[in-house]
Amino acid sequence: MTAPLLNQRDLAFVLYELLDADELTKRPRFAEHSRETFDAALETAHDIARDHFLPHNREADEREPWLEDGRVETVPAVKAALEAFSKAGLMAAHADAELGGMQLPWVVAQACMAYFQGANVGTAAYPLLTIAAANLVNAFGTQEQKALYLTPMLEGRFFGTMALTEPSAGSSLGDLRTTAEPTPEGHYHIRGAKIFISGGEHELAENIVHLVLARIRGAPAGVKGISLFLVPRRLLDADGRAGAKNDVALGGLIHKMGFRGTVSTILNFGERDRCVGYLVGAPGQGLACMFHMMNEARIGVGMGAVMLGYRGYLESLEYARGRPQGRRPGEKDPTRPPVAIIEHADVKRMLLAQKAYVEGSFALGLYLARLVDEKMTAPDDGRRREAGLLLELLTPIMKAWPSDWCLEANRLAIQVLGGYGYTREFPVEQLYRDNRLNAIHEGTNGIQALDLLGRKVVMENGAAAKLLMAEIERACEAAKAFSALADHARALRAAAKAAKATTRALVAGRFTRGVEAFLANASVYLDMLGHTVVAWMWLKQATVAARRLDGASGAERDFYEGKLAACRYFFRWELPKCEAQHALLRRLDPTCLEMRSELF
Amino acid sequence: MTAPLLNQRDLAFVLYELLDADELTKRPRFAEHSRETFDAALETAHDIARDHFLPHNREADEREPWLEDGRVETVPAVKAALEAFSKAGLMAAHADAELGGMQLPWVVAQACMAYFQGANVGTAAYPLLTIAAANLVNAFGTQEQKALYLTPMLEGRFFGTMALTEPSAGSSLGDLRTTAEPTPEGHYHIRGAKIFISGGEHELAENIVHLVLARIRGAPAGVKGISLFLVPRRLLDADGRAGAKNDVALGGLIHKMGFRGTVSTILNFGERDRCVGYLVGAPGQGLACMFHMMNEARIGVGMGAVMLGYRGYLESLEYARGRPQGRRPGEKDPTRPPVAIIEHADVKRMLLAQKAYVEGSFALGLYLARLVDEKMTAPDDGRRREAGLLLELLTPIMKAWPSDWCLEANRLAIQVLGGYGYTREFPVEQLYRDNRLNAIHEGTNGIQALDLLGRKVVMENGAAAKLLMAEIERACEAAKAFSALADHARALRAAAKAAKATTRALVAGRFTRGVEAFLANASVYLDMLGHTVVAWMWLKQATVAARRLDGASGAERDFYEGKLAACRYFFRWELPKCEAQHALLRRLDPTCLEMRSELF
Repeated sequence: MTAPLLNQRDLAFVLYELLDADELTKRPRFAEHSRETFDAALETAHDIARDHFLPHNREADEREPWLEDGRVETVPAVKAALEAFSKAGLMAAHADAELGGMQLPWVVAQACMAYFQGANVGTAAYPLLTIAAANLVNAFGTQEQKALYLTPMLEGRFFGTMALTEPSAGSSLGDLRTTAEPTPEGHYHIRGAKIFISGGEHELAENIVHLVLARIRGAPAGVKGISLFLVPRRLLDADGRAGAKNDVALGGLIHKMGFRGTVSTILNFGERDRCVGYLVGAPGQGLACMFHMMNEARIGVGMGAVMLGYRGYLESLEYARGRPQGRRPGEKDPTRPPVAIIEHADVKRMLLAQKAYVEGSFALGLYLARLVDEKMTAPDDGRRREAGLLLELLTPIMKAWPSDWCLEANRLAIQVLGGYGYTREFPVEQLYRDNRLNAIHEGTNGIQALDLLGRKVVMENGAAAKLLMAEIERACEAAKAFSALADHARALRAAAKAAKATTRALVAGRFTRGVEAFLANASVYLDMLGHTVVAWMWLKQATVAARRLDGASGAERDFYEGKLAACRYFFRWELPKCEAQHALLRRLDPTCLEMRSELF
Repeated sequence: MTAPLLNQRDLAFVLYELLDADELTKRPRFAEHSRETFDAALETAHDIARDHFLPHNREADEREPWLEDGRVETVPAVKAALEAFSKAGLMAAHADAELGGMQLPWVVAQACMAYFQGANVGTAAYPLLTIAAANLVNAFGTQEQKALYLTPMLEGRFFGTMALTEPSAGSSLGDLRTTAEPTPEGHYHIRGAKIFISGGEHELAENIVHLVLARIRGAPAGVKGISLFLVPRRLLDADGRAGAKNDVALGGLIHKMGFRGTVSTILNFGERDRCVGYLVGAPGQGLACMFHMMNEARIGVGMGAVMLGYRGYLESLEYARGRPQGRRPGEKDPTRPPVAIIEHADVKRMLLAQKAYVEGSFALGLYLARLVDEKMTAPDDGRRREAGLLLELLTPIMKAWPSDWCLEANRLAIQVLGGYGYTREFPVEQLYRDNRLNAIHEGTNGIQALDLLGRKVVMENGAAAKLLMAEIERACEAAKAFSALADHARALRAAAKAAKATTRALVAGRFTRGVEAFLANASVYLDMLGHTVVAWMWLKQATVAARRLDGASGAERDFYEGKLAACRYFFRWELPKCEAQHALLRRLDPTCLEMRSELF
């Protein structure tokens, strides 16, 4: 009776028809793989997500982690699910074979993870954090650190956290105060408080590996003085097993609106002055190390937002098909049976909007994951560099746009179900609550907007933005061969041109009006460019669909026609919203910037 | 430390400077009143809301009503708060003096209620429902019914409910199946199930008066066969006291995402075939009776949405002023102290948007309440008729627009607080959850849109729409005297003209393309006209502010300048969004209507 976690036909379409993921098997790193091994991994992920993650999604929401005798307890199904996940090797889906990993492409690993994010985002957060932490240790850890910590993380015996935020340093990491004091033994003593640490304390794994940003005594103020430390919850004994407790104390549990299955903690490091931490990477390079995995982490957050939206879409679709209510306008005979609500234009609107938001950003998320692979494994330098540039530019969009618009999708899913949708007896209200976090964590959407406009768009003389424009132009060229898409191709070309002109006006304004005026409306800029980019994703999807439509029949034909219809919706209903934004951005509208605090 | 429930300076501004509420005291019905008595009532409401409703808002959310020994229990503070409310005479704030009421104008009563909706919307729902039910009994009940039920309701001894929705008849009331069988004693036996009945079962009052829509045996199908019945939870004894239980059984409690303080029930009437109900009004007139109080009820829902938004705005404003974080762009020295986040342009944007949404629709809500008074008490027929027409037209906008846009305000309030805003340790997440209901109950926003375009805009040959256009034109004329407002006046005039042209295109399309195409995008139409109407409210407010600015200084000057700034925001950032909507509406965009179910 439950709707599927995602449309598997859509996943195959995006992976293989849109992104040619099977092409990756021609590269040395993935030579052992084939479409069959990709599909086997996806099927495993799907089965475990459906059988072990989905069933306790509501239970973990209703019974959020609690303290009992000083231990953080969770509903038992969480641990069982995570064991199934680890046992299937999914903690190491992307990792090197020599580390025991499956060595899957990132795009396939991301697609595997999508099932878990859709099924139960609260429980999925544990492996997501562990995989991110493992990536960091792999990239910057010493051989010893890798041997001691990376292997058990990839096996799912140790879990990871990211301990960045402090009570008075959230978006402003440069102000963090946690200190690290070198010891004669060569490690450090860490001291300070961290807040909003997901997975910070629990009994789900043998150990927890906290990756902590701190300031070595005497380091300069600001971001340049920040270093990265590995702080295990339990110190390792001579055999590498988790032994005595380190000096990391739980300061409290945080109770959230959603994402309740993920324990959120306040952690106090070094309350008794003996919290042992190990430097990872060079001193002062803490933030640079963190940024190494930032693209992947932010794509992961964006994909979480997409999958919550996707679930809501499919749940509301199933409901709308099965719920009879009302008659079509013009039907005056009350004795005629009611129609399924999917027949009402306004319900179709709410479903089409959801489809356009979630499938559009689902394609974008996997496109970015594919760029991660490209950046790592493309045969030539130029292609790797270009992939890296596009990735840098598109990451803040992939993080922020879905966390706004797939939340909007969840709002619409509730509305399709009406009064039922507002109750906890149906799944859509939880999806909405869960999704509200994604605009906040891993850098708020406001921070993403500043990153996009203030850094990414202008970096290397606008090189990334130029690449994006060229990609969009290519998509328009390919699309215009199909008469059904010619209008869209023209509209996207115009939108890209407008985005370019708006960017130019902003950059010029930076010099004439100053940096504050330049950045004041960055959030609007992100939304505008996000819409343009998602329109591009839709045109690319529609072009594939139009190409395949001729030979298709039955459900296949419906699938491709559905893609064309959602593309049409996006171009007619969504893209035109950018016009008002262009006008506002080009005049560097000062309304917000000039508002004085005392006038509120 | 808590932010105020609303800005009292704003309330006085809207009531007295914008709406001239004190003018009402010149009318016979309000002759005993003065601005002083209005203010005294408002102060009483404010004190009770702050002292008795606000303190248990979170507690009632965390401990929603529960079943114990077959009784529905609530946290004790709910009953105490409601007793304080009734004791102050607020159940009868608007009622006739001869019924023991305060005989306040509706606009003042609505403003009193606003405090309770902001403080604790879950507990405020009980009096809101009781007042609506009392209005119905007052309008259509027999003398005996009034004596037996109305008086104890106005005293707060009996509470009321509205029992319309059934498990398979929500938006489509014409399909309801509850039956009423006449008995030899002159009353009826009611039989059927109702769902989502707020306040349907509890121990908060001596009795509960259910107003139930049902179909008298043999009545025609559809809405014409529906009659209204008064069904008490307990039958009255010879002295009019609540005695033996009537045959109304609790079928279950519904667990919602928000509004948790209001018990939501499934009720089974007549499980043992002896549920006594009394006909209210004429047979077959049930829906007409309900619609008698629909304007007031829908304005009430819209005001609830406004007040939740208003609270979130003030909470996030207080937080933004007190929270230091980050530095302004261009400040490179990390040793300089951080600024309060209200100094960041993006935070100002989120606060200005909230201010524009909530103060704009707050003014609209009280303007509509003022129209209720005008319709009831204006000295001449023409003015009463015009007020009634405007009220009919604007009610669906007042119900739907705030429940979309003040929810958006709540989303922004969470974002201002960042990670803290997402926790249950701060109030904004509950406001967001509570507010999500308002787009659903009392007619979904989709139903409001159909009502607006399909009925209200076209009724009496567009008479109401013409009146609205004339009012808007008057506001533009008045505004253009102030140079700061001349641009806005031009923009609003253009927006009104565009709305007229769009309406004309739609009405013409009804004949050429059919009724389904005409109504397919009604939701977009409502949003567009809502934006236009709220822009009008802003221009009216700004005109008053501009007039008073000259003589003002200090906090008064800031207040008026704040109104001008929010008006500017609305005209620069919000009103231009309508342009894309006009284009879509004028072509009767068929994208949604033509979407086939199997293509999703």
